[in-house]
Order: sequence, then structure tokens, then C-alpha cells
Amino acid sequence: MRLSHTIFLVLTWAALFTNSAFSTSPGGADTAFVASRYSEAAHRIITRALSDSAAFERLAYMCDTFGPRLSGSENLERALRWIEKTMKNDGLDNVHSEPVMVPHWVRGKESLLLLEPRRYDMPMLGLGGSIATPPEGITAEAIVVNTFEELERRSEEARGKIVVYNPPWDGYGRTVRYRTRGAIEAAKAGAVASLIRSVTPVSLQTPHTGMMRYHDSIPKIPHAAITVEDAAMLERMHRRGQKIVLTLRMEAKTLPDAVSHNVVAELRGTERPDEIIVMGGHIDSWDVGEGAMDDGGGCIAAWQAVKLLKDLGLRPRRTIRVVMWTNEENGMRGGLGYFDAHKDEVSKHLLAIESDAGVFKPRGFGLSGNDTIRSVVNAVARLLNSIDAGEITERGGGVDISPLMRAGVPGMGLRVHGEKYFWYHHSPADTIDKLDPRDMNLCVATLAVMAYVVADLPETWF
Amino acid sequence: MRLSHTIFLVLTWAALFTNSAFSTSPGGADTAFVASRYSEAAHRIITRALSDSAAFERLAYMCDTFGPRLSGSENLERALRWIEKTMKNDGLDNVHSEPVMVPHWVRGKESLLLLEPRRYDMPMLGLGGSIATPPEGITAEAIVVNTFEELERRSEEARGKIVVYNPPWDGYGRTVRYRTRGAIEAAKAGAVASLIRSVTPVSLQTPHTGMMRYHDSIPKIPHAAITVEDAAMLERMHRRGQKIVLTLRMEAKTLPDAVSHNVVAELRGTERPDEIIVMGGHIDSWDVGEGAMDDGGGCIAAWQAVKLLKDLGLRPRRTIRVVMWTNEENGMRGGLGYFDAHKDEVSKHLLAIESDAGVFKPRGFGLSGNDTIRSVVNAVARLLNSIDAGEITERGGGVDISPLMRAGVPGMGLRVHGEKYFWYHHSPADTIDKLDPRDMNLCVATLAVMAYVVADLPETWF
Repeated sequence: MRLSHTIFLVLTWAALFTNSAFSTSPGGADTAFVASRYSEAAHRIITRALSDSAAFERLAYMCDTFGPRLSGSENLERALRWIEKTMKNDGLDNVHSEPVMVPHWVRGKESLLLLEPRRYDMPMLGLGGSIATPPEGITAEAIVVNTFEELERRSEEARGKIVVYNPPWDGYGRTVRYRTRGAIEAAKAGAVASLIRSVTPVSLQTPHTGMMRYHDSIPKIPHAAITVEDAAMLERMHRRGQKIVLTLRMEAKTLPDAVSHNVVAELRGTERPDEIIVMGGHIDSWDVGEGAMDDGGGCIAAWQAVKLLKDLGLRPRRTIRVVMWTNEENGMRGGLGYFDAHKDEVSKHLLAIESDAGVFKPRGFGLSGNDTIRSVVNAVARLLNSIDAGEITERGGGVDISPLMRAGVPGMGLRVHGEKYFWYHHSPADTIDKLDPRDMNLCVATLAVMAYVVADLPETWF
Repeated sequence: MRLSHTIFLVLTWAALFTNSAFSTSPGGADTAFVASRYSEAAHRIITRALSDSAAFERLAYMCDTFGPRLSGSENLERALRWIEKTMKNDGLDNVHSEPVMVPHWVRGKESLLLLEPRRYDMPMLGLGGSIATPPEGITAEAIVVNTFEELERRSEEARGKIVVYNPPWDGYGRTVRYRTRGAIEAAKAGAVASLIRSVTPVSLQTPHTGMMRYHDSIPKIPHAAITVEDAAMLERMHRRGQKIVLTLRMEAKTLPDAVSHNVVAELRGTERPDEIIVMGGHIDSWDVGEGAMDDGGGCIAAWQAVKLLKDLGLRPRRTIRVVMWTNEENGMRGGLGYFDAHKDEVSKHLLAIESDAGVFKPRGFGLSGNDTIRSVVNAVARLLNSIDAGEITERGGGVDISPLMRAGVPGMGLRVHGEKYFWYHHSPADTIDKLDPRDMNLCVATLAVMAYVVADLPETWF
């Protein structure tokens, strides 16, 4: 499926490329065409997007009223029902829910008590997918390591203990492995539980949760996050030779899969409605904070972008479809379910756009796709230079659109000034007050201009 | 006492001023004298202070091992016993404890549950001195106001409700009044409890505690802090017309006064040992975090400064006395107790120096005192220019030295680059990882150079 589809797309694009009457160089004829045909529409979109704080208010209402939206939770389904109803009230087309079975992990009560060298009730968050401890908890001495390599060197010491990982912050991509693989490596060494320094560069005693993994052939042990501060403290105690004793209690459990939904709405195309620009974010979040940045904001920005086009009477030639994908955080079932439910029209997806980096001030998009789509997107992006959101970089996409991308659909991720994103990510501090209504409006404008123009361009371009 | 003492000091200083052979202008003869006589000592002090991380390690050991040090707690007394013992091991002079009776407020268990519009267990911290709720808690609707003025306008609505203050951040000095006076003003309006937005410019869902007051003629109601995020959320809900129902539970109580201690150590002067430069910080903290910035760091920096002089064999002509004042946070009994215990030698205090702003990179000192002491301090401060810590500003001091200052002793506070101080202040995030060992060493050097040179200058200067 994947290969044949890719070949199909390549052939299509090759044909398009030779059909195209426009140069693909920046500033070339295609750019001039886009500018002459779409500048006014882009201006109207941007002006309207900046005219009120409706997007922010909608996001705030959802976050405040329904709370965090973990897969399997009633919070999430209540939020989805509100979204579907409100999308219908907005007058969008083909608004509906597509059921998806999702993992149903629940945290339950949990605590971590330092017993030695002093009593202290530590802030903590169990990691998504972790097993529970026995009801009485696990009381054990702790060993603190900086890296997997150190754990391997000292594995004899780890037997029967709680392994505390305190890796240096080295960017999210490198530091997160202690969250994902930490329990596996600790269990290999015979540890009874494992704790990680929260995956963040900055902390005010704020624990950060997130997904973790087990390996079928290795014993499962409870795995939780502590704060940057407390991981550093435990390391200081350990290096000083102070004996550390902890009691970890977790009730976490994985229930049978639950029903959740991808909510879908469209602005149907006028001429080629079966051709689709799909755009959205993931509506599920972790079970702390409000899921404002990860990824309520991305969802609502995409939704508002389509509503804005409808309100302005800007209906493109192709269909723009907005999807609130469910269960990105701990299962990706929304993205997979969408792909399965829309298998027959995958080849009709011209472009997939995901916004999952927080609706901070936008920079542009990261694009994964061939030269043809890149020249299209580069040309359209010129329309966003007035709001400094026209930067197109190599590689982009998103977890939810990755099944489409693997099948050859060009994928694009909204890029933002997200320098503080990981301060809040997966933590109780992922709340809407960190966002600026104007920045969010700029995200709405960026998504709306890009989706509208790509969806409206002449077929000779594709 | 105060007036006559002040007159005495003014006369003394007037005499000194006319006795002084040195110009008081920056760069004048006094500066030249200080430079020629003390440059080498200052250089040795600074070099030695920067040669290791002993100060930081001592602070970390104390914070990690004993935990936060609230007045009346066993944590505080254990830390004080360790300090006294260690000061003796350091070979400092006249190391002893001076008992002081301190308030003994204990937090007990506490919680704040949002019931409507959704269930949510909110992070919170009862404020120091607050009364408890009944055991079943107080369940009431909330009203959110930004200011006392708004509360006054809407006081009819506040009756029987929980008042939530969500003032805009307007600097510590102005925003803190909702913490100190919030319960009084809310009770005046007939409220059953009050909550404040934590007094901080930045939050990652971190509540900040601190002192609050009651008024004898106004009913006492429980008073607690919530996070910046949650205060903003409650305000959004309130402005939106969503009904907010909260259950506040607090076990807080004020026990009979407890015995605590000011710990004192000296580097006795060689020629005029009865003349004193007193220097220190407050050793008590709130009962969350580690009290690393507020004010473990200030205490240990002052202590290390004196130890450093001793280790270098730099014994000045007058006595430098280091004091770990107890109970600054919720009573000031340490500062008052010191004043009472040393009444007879108050006039022998040439200068009082407090460090209570975090041991971040030092800038210099803020000085409250007359022109004579200002010219002395200005001249000495030149020796700190090499580490950019020689800036002397108008007005300074500290809570613990304020009784001395009211009696006419010139007072000085260490000034630092404390832009982030209030991010951590009175919160679980007041932990040592926020500090840099080199910055702390620079504080040690700054305190040591200033104290040493002032304590050693010829008597013609005073």
C-alpha cells in the first residue's frame, strides 16, 4: 500500500511539475501569481484573525470547563461533545465524530515519601502506562545515576533499589529517553522501581508526566517523575554518601480500551471537494494542567482557521478538513484511526498540517514533502511575511498525521517561538495563561492563509 | 532611648567627620588610603573565596539534611545545633546560642477542592498565622476580585462567600498587601474565607506562602494562597458567569511560643574588640522548599565570610560578629531578641550588615546611614569593583537589623542580581539548585572585604 501510493504520488507530482507554468524559485512567477491572486484574501484573513480574541476565549472556555483531557476520561469526551456541537453551531460542513478505541490508563492516588535522611513528601507524577506499586507501596533505598551508562557500570548496586535518573538537560529529544526507557533499563539491573528527573529545562518544583514503555521480556516496575529540584537534591545526598530511603505508592492501572472520537469538520471545496487539505491537532492531553498548549491550542487554532474562512465567505476550490485527533499522547490511536477510516481517500489528501507545538507566536511551517509541494508552500508562505510567519524549513509534520505521511502525503507542522514550551509540557503548568491571545490569533491566521490558498490553487499546480 | 542614642551617634559621627583627614569624595584621599592599605587583603579574600565551592556545599548540606526551617520546628533547631557545632569546629570565637521565644505556627494538613464548574484538587498553601477551617472544611461559592477597591464596591456579593484576590502583579511591595491584609478586608465584607494569587511574577503551578495578619476587632477567617494559574482561571470562570464552588480545609494552628535561638560567632578584634561590625541573615525559613535563598544563603555567606578571614589570618582591629537571626519570617523575634540581649553594646555597633535577598551575583550594598559612614563604605566598596560588587546605593538594611537601625546604627543590605528572587520566594521552589556556587562565593567575598576593612580602619575614620 505504502509503496504503490508513494509511486502514485510521485508520478502525480512529476506530472504536475511539468504541467506547471510557474517557476519554483522563490520570487519567481508562482510567487507573483500567488501574490496577485491571494494577497487581498490573505490580508482579509489576517485582519479578521487579529480583530478579536475569540480563539483564545474558546480555548480558555474548553480548558477551564472540562479540565485536562486524558484518553479514556469523561473530561475528554465531554470536551469532544462540546466541540462537535459548537462546530455545528458554527455552520461548518460535515461535522461528525469518528469512534476510535483508545488506551485507558488512570493515575489513581500516588505519593512519594522521602524517609531518610529526612522526611519529605515529594511532588511526583506517575508516568503514563506505569503499573502500580503494591498497596503498601515500595520502600527501598535509592541509587542516583546520571545516565544509562552509569547505571550499567553500577548495576550491581541497583539490585533491589529504586533507581533515580538525574540526567543533565540535553534538549527534549535526548533527555526524554530516561522517561521512555528508564523502567526497562532499571528493571534489567534488578531495581524495584525507577524515578526520573522531569523532562524540562526549568522547574519551580513542577513534575512533568508523559509516556513510558515496558518490554515484554523484562519485569515491569513502577516508573514516575520527580521534579528537577528533587532529583538534584537526591543526587547531592547520594554523592555525599547520605543514605536515601523512599516509599513510592502508586495506584496506576490500565483499564480495558475505551471509546473516544476524532471530531471532524469541513469547509467543503467548491470545485474539487474530494481533494483534501487536512489540518488539526490532538485534542487529548495528559491528566494534569489544562492541556492548553499540548494541544488544545493547536486544535482550536485549526478549527478557528476554518471558521474564519467560512465567516469571511472564503470557500476554496478544494475541501479543508479540520480534525481533532484523539489519543496522541499515549497511543496515537486517533491518527491511526483516521488513516484507517479514510483509507480510500488517502490519495486525495494533498497536504496534512498539524499544529502541536503550542500556539505561541508563529514562525511558519516545517515541511516534509518533495520539491513540488515545497515550491507551492514556499510561494504561499510569502503571504505570511507581513506577520513574520512565512519561514518554511526542512522536515515537519506531526504524530497524528504521520500515518498519512508514511503513505506519501506531504506533512507540515506549524512552527512557533516555543522557547518555553517544555517549561509547561505535560505538567500542571500547561495552562492557558502562558499563551497570548494575539499570538494565538497569528497562529489562526497562519493556518488559515496556508490552508486556504493551497486548497484554492489551480489544479495545474498539483 | 532611641532619640538620645541617635543624638549620641550624630555627635560621634560629627566628631569623626571633623577628625577625618580624608576627603569623602569618591576617588579622594580616603579611597587612596583604602586602596593602598587594603588592596592586597581584598585580593587575597576574593581569590580565596573563589577557590572552591565550600560555601555552596555547606548551604546544600544544611538545606538537604535539615529541610525547611520554620520557627518552632525541630528542623530549625537541628540546623541551629549543627551550625553552632560547626562554627566551633571552624575555630571561630565566642560561639554560642542566645535563646529567643518564637511564634509556633503549624500548617497541618490542608486542601482546596474546586467542586464547580468541575472537580479539581488545587495546589495551595495556607498563609502563615492563618486559623484553621472547621474539620469538615468551608464549602462556599467564590467571588473573584482584582483589588480591595473592587471588593469594597462589590462587598454585598462577598457575604458568606470565599473571596479570591487576583491582583495584577505590580511588584512585590504592592502585590503583597493582598497576602497581609486580605483576610481582614474579606472578613469586613462578611466573607467566610479568602484566597490570594501567590505573590510572584512567574509560576509553574507553584503556590507561595508568607505572613498574613488579623485585626483584633474583625472576625478571623482562614487565608491561603493559590497559584497564579488557578487565580487566573477562577477569574476567567467568574467573569464568564460560571458558578464557582470551593471546599477549603486547613488544620493550621498557632501553638504556644517555642524556644529558638540566635546563633552567634565572632572574629574578635585585635585592638578594639568591643567595637562591632555585626553581619548575618535569618536562619528561619517558611516550611516549604529548603529556605536556600530565603535566607539560608545569606546566613551561610556571612558565616563563610568570617571563616574565610580567620583562615587567611586576617583578624581586624574591631570585632566582626556573625549572627544567624531566628524567626524573621513570622515574628522578627530574632532581631528583637538580639537587640534586647545586646542593649548595653548597641552604641558599640559601628555597622550592621544583613544579607537577605538571595546569594545571587552581588552588586554591592544599599546603605542607610549618614554621610560619614557613607564615605567610609564608598571608599571600601572600591575594593569590590574588580568583581562588579562595589555599587553603594541609598537606603538599605534588613528586618533583623532594623531594631539596631532604629537605635541609630548604620544598616546595610547586600544587593544582588535578584531578578528571579520572587519566582522562588516562600515557595517549594526555594531550593539550592537555583543558586550558582560562584555567585555565592562572590557574595562571601563581598561581605568579607566590606566587613574586614570597615572593622580594621583607623579610629580616626569613626
